[in-house]
Amino acid sequence: MTKIFDDPAQFADDALDGFVAANRQYVARVDGGVVRSTESPEGQVAVVIGGGSGHYPAFAGLVGAGLAAGSACGNMFASPSAGQVYRVAKASQSGGGVLLSYGNYAGDVLHFGQAQEKLNAEGIETRTVLVTDDIASAPLEEIGKRRGIAGDLTVFKVAGAAAEAGLDLDEVERLAIKANHHTRSLGVAFAGCTLPGADEPLFTVPEGMMSVGLGIHGEPGISEQPLPTASELAQLLVDGLLKDKPDIAGRRVAPILNGLGTVKYDELFLLFGKIEALLTAAGLEVVEPECGELVTSLDMSGLSLTLFWLDGELEKFWSAPADTPAFRKGNLAPRRARSVESLAEAGTAPVLAATPASTALAATALDALKEAQAVVVEHEETLGKLDAIAGDGDHGIGMRRGVDAAVAAAEKSHAAGAGLEELLAAAGEQWAERAGGTSGALWGAAVTAVGKTLGSKDSYTAADAAAAVNALRDAIVTLGKAEAGDKTMVDALLPFADTFSKAIDDGGSLAASLSAAAEAAAKAADATAELSPKKGRARPLAEKSLGHPDPGAVSFGLIARRVADYAATIESS
Amino acid sequence: MTKIFDDPAQFADDALDGFVAANRQYVARVDGGVVRSTESPEGQVAVVIGGGSGHYPAFAGLVGAGLAAGSACGNMFASPSAGQVYRVAKASQSGGGVLLSYGNYAGDVLHFGQAQEKLNAEGIETRTVLVTDDIASAPLEEIGKRRGIAGDLTVFKVAGAAAEAGLDLDEVERLAIKANHHTRSLGVAFAGCTLPGADEPLFTVPEGMMSVGLGIHGEPGISEQPLPTASELAQLLVDGLLKDKPDIAGRRVAPILNGLGTVKYDELFLLFGKIEALLTAAGLEVVEPECGELVTSLDMSGLSLTLFWLDGELEKFWSAPADTPAFRKGNLAPRRARSVESLAEAGTAPVLAATPASTALAATALDALKEAQAVVVEHEETLGKLDAIAGDGDHGIGMRRGVDAAVAAAEKSHAAGAGLEELLAAAGEQWAERAGGTSGALWGAAVTAVGKTLGSKDSYTAADAAAAVNALRDAIVTLGKAEAGDKTMVDALLPFADTFSKAIDDGGSLAASLSAAAEAAAKAADATAELSPKKGRARPLAEKSLGHPDPGAVSFGLIARRVADYAATIESS
Repeated sequence: MTKIFDDPAQFADDALDGFVAANRQYVARVDGGVVRSTESPEGQVAVVIGGGSGHYPAFAGLVGAGLAAGSACGNMFASPSAGQVYRVAKASQSGGGVLLSYGNYAGDVLHFGQAQEKLNAEGIETRTVLVTDDIASAPLEEIGKRRGIAGDLTVFKVAGAAAEAGLDLDEVERLAIKANHHTRSLGVAFAGCTLPGADEPLFTVPEGMMSVGLGIHGEPGISEQPLPTASELAQLLVDGLLKDKPDIAGRRVAPILNGLGTVKYDELFLLFGKIEALLTAAGLEVVEPECGELVTSLDMSGLSLTLFWLDGELEKFWSAPADTPAFRKGNLAPRRARSVESLAEAGTAPVLAATPASTALAATALDALKEAQAVVVEHEETLGKLDAIAGDGDHGIGMRRGVDAAVAAAEKSHAAGAGLEELLAAAGEQWAERAGGTSGALWGAAVTAVGKTLGSKDSYTAADAAAAVNALRDAIVTLGKAEAGDKTMVDALLPFADTFSKAIDDGGSLAASLSAAAEAAAKAADATAELSPKKGRARPLAEKSLGHPDPGAVSFGLIARRVADYAATIESS
Repeated sequence: MTKIFDDPAQFADDALDGFVAANRQYVARVDGGVVRSTESPEGQVAVVIGGGSGHYPAFAGLVGAGLAAGSACGNMFASPSAGQVYRVAKASQSGGGVLLSYGNYAGDVLHFGQAQEKLNAEGIETRTVLVTDDIASAPLEEIGKRRGIAGDLTVFKVAGAAAEAGLDLDEVERLAIKANHHTRSLGVAFAGCTLPGADEPLFTVPEGMMSVGLGIHGEPGISEQPLPTASELAQLLVDGLLKDKPDIAGRRVAPILNGLGTVKYDELFLLFGKIEALLTAAGLEVVEPECGELVTSLDMSGLSLTLFWLDGELEKFWSAPADTPAFRKGNLAPRRARSVESLAEAGTAPVLAATPASTALAATALDALKEAQAVVVEHEETLGKLDAIAGDGDHGIGMRRGVDAAVAAAEKSHAAGAGLEELLAAAGEQWAERAGGTSGALWGAAVTAVGKTLGSKDSYTAADAAAAVNALRDAIVTLGKAEAGDKTMVDALLPFADTFSKAIDDGGSLAASLSAAAEAAAKAADATAELSPKKGRARPLAEKSLGHPDPGAVSFGLIARRVADYAATIESS
């Protein structure tokens, strides 16, 4: 049980501050995560990693010479926002391009993906290598769907060492992809973990049982069985991984036995001894093993075994020196400290010129955002309760954080004289960033897309409004990858967009069209009560949601209604 | 809960084997613990540490260049035997003498002390520095009675760095003593830990409460209070330690925030951030801090803060490079591997010449040991049950392990033609070593003392028997430091020795005197039921023992009776 905190809502931020305080020789805090506090050679590829907090030493503990250049650190078990990833990457890069690498989870793919686009758009060449080592999460035929767990380390380490050796982005990317192809993991769990401030564990394993393949956030596993002996457990893990051995595997292998939190060192060592004996008996040569806590899940009771199948070049980079808070190997020459002040400047931009029409519309957009804020405030508690039925109950607080930040950013932009596109870009970025979670990213992208579509024109027509609604729809659908019937906000969004287009095409006024669309959205949101979620990590909870509408669809309907009402007041004035 | 093992009785050994398998570049296994697997310069002082297992990375994880030369590893939470310490020290030393350093616990003091005597007797100059950092375990006026907890690290580190720098034993000892004087720790606990194979935790803390000053094996603390916030906890720890600040303290301080097992990294970092702010606000300068798991107690939930008050030379050795499995700092030149085969030879000795009378008496001693073995086997279960009332229930199994090993060693000595002194020395050493715990050490010392007193004479008289019994008594009293009425085996031993002396003085036969003494011992053992233990670490359990005799006194009475009966059969034949 997680016990040490002042305010559970600030846990991830406070912990990161303390981590930096304890490790100033390695890391410096930037908005969104941490970067090396030491200089990196000009032109070195920056390996930028990250993910949710609560998995220490993944990810911030792996930042340092010979490994990662920076880590974007999300909230507890939640992806960092695109803005966080973007800013950390900007502060990490040294002119050699950026390799983003992280475990394959939908939220991370979404946010890191957006950051990559933005970095590339700015001329910072950025690539992505996903880690997909967990053999329990999908069959070999669908290897690309596998989750990333402790195998993160092999990919980050090889990429970081390749960057340290001065290889270019093409080579670093190639080696990281290869390391991922050579890495397989299998985990078991004995008990779940408890998030700061929560009364109950996030997920559970029945007493006296072991869940095979359960993910590090409680994602479904393969099977449950009674607790085995250490020798039986070693056999289960080794057999499972040898069956899934990559075709290119040779005789040399680096095993990584990873504790998830409350399985302690002596237990890990004891098990490692059995595993080493089995690998040796299988004719393999054990090289540079690791045994300890490398990817944790707070106080989760469980462990995983990773086999990293080496060839000449992978072994070279796996064995290379590294010097980070949590992972040290060999000797690296001491690095000079870099100026931390210079980091604060990354990611700010001047106000761009805009047409009078765009600047006027920006004021209207700000007011509309304030209306959205008001309706979210009114329903914050209800949305939270609705989300608690089938999720972690943070939809109300998340929407609130997002819309509050969006309004604050829009006000600042407006005061600086920004046009519509710039104002909505600032609002969208802050929404995505402060809300946390997938819905924050979707709303942020939607707001940004509306601004981009409307741009800076001399005047605006009904056709522009239709185009803006379509852009809003496309942004959410493209980024979220949900389909109609998945029980998400898309179930309210699609009827909204369809109804609006049709109403405008039929010559309706903006306010009347918006009103009809909002009504369709609200109705569709209510209808999501009949659906079961198509994805969702907490098994027993997902089923509970039947009979209750999706909170994301409900909040979409509420905001649509309020904005339509606001449009009516403008049109009539 | 400790879950991963095959046979709980083999846990510590199996875990140590696995630890070595995972860390061959640093450590090699020797009988009794681990030593560096790399060469140390000839003439370097060997810092030899150790203690019970279950505290990783203390102690085996701290063996390597710039830190310890070897670690003696006892059973779970139990001191290593004198033989283990002796053999590890022999295999660790490089001709510059040995510094033994460990936490101040009665069992460790006893066993390390015996090893020190033996090493010094062999011409390997050996000193001891106890760690006494836990301010909750005794008031400042009785600083020498304080327990050692995470402050172990500062003392070991400074001593190891001083040895690495080539300083001689006087200097290494002086610096270790100084480091201990400059180190203060305070711990808190939220929940106890469970030994491998146990159904219940070794000790508990009430739900929702925090115990301040509770020791790492459940030793009594100072107070209990409801769980505080992180800021309140930081204040409590910092205030407590600043109040106990040594007079010689300056402005520079190295804080060590140590997690005991299930308080995880993010929680530790979060707390560290608050602690650093308080120390800075108090006008102190934080230097080279540590935050992580450095001395654990299996899956215990708790943490401790250590303040190491630096001066110029202490800071120099604290900051110096070290390279061990669990603690790495700076860069040290790579070391050559040493030959592990050569380690196996340490600690064996040839058979010495003995008189025919001594060799004949050795055969009788072997038979008497077999009688003792038989009675222990008969009562093993009863003794275990008796011990479980107020202790950890291992007295039966411990006596069994000890006497089995003693008989096996005596048989081997006898087959090699050894005299009495040598045979009993071998038996005593093995008894102490295999039994584990204090009673094993006491029996081992007693058996050895009897052999030493009887020596290798041309003939033996009743006066020799009386001297032997007195030697047996003195060995146990001197080593165990228990007094009459403390509810220990001494309560049976003293009446036994008194009755025997008196009976021999009165001209009684050996058998009759032994019989009278055995009767007195058995009666006194029964009478211990009326006593309460004077020490004992598990608070609630100690009181439960009232009304039940002490298992150590009972086993002493049983063995005395059986040996007396055996003496009667010899005398009559």
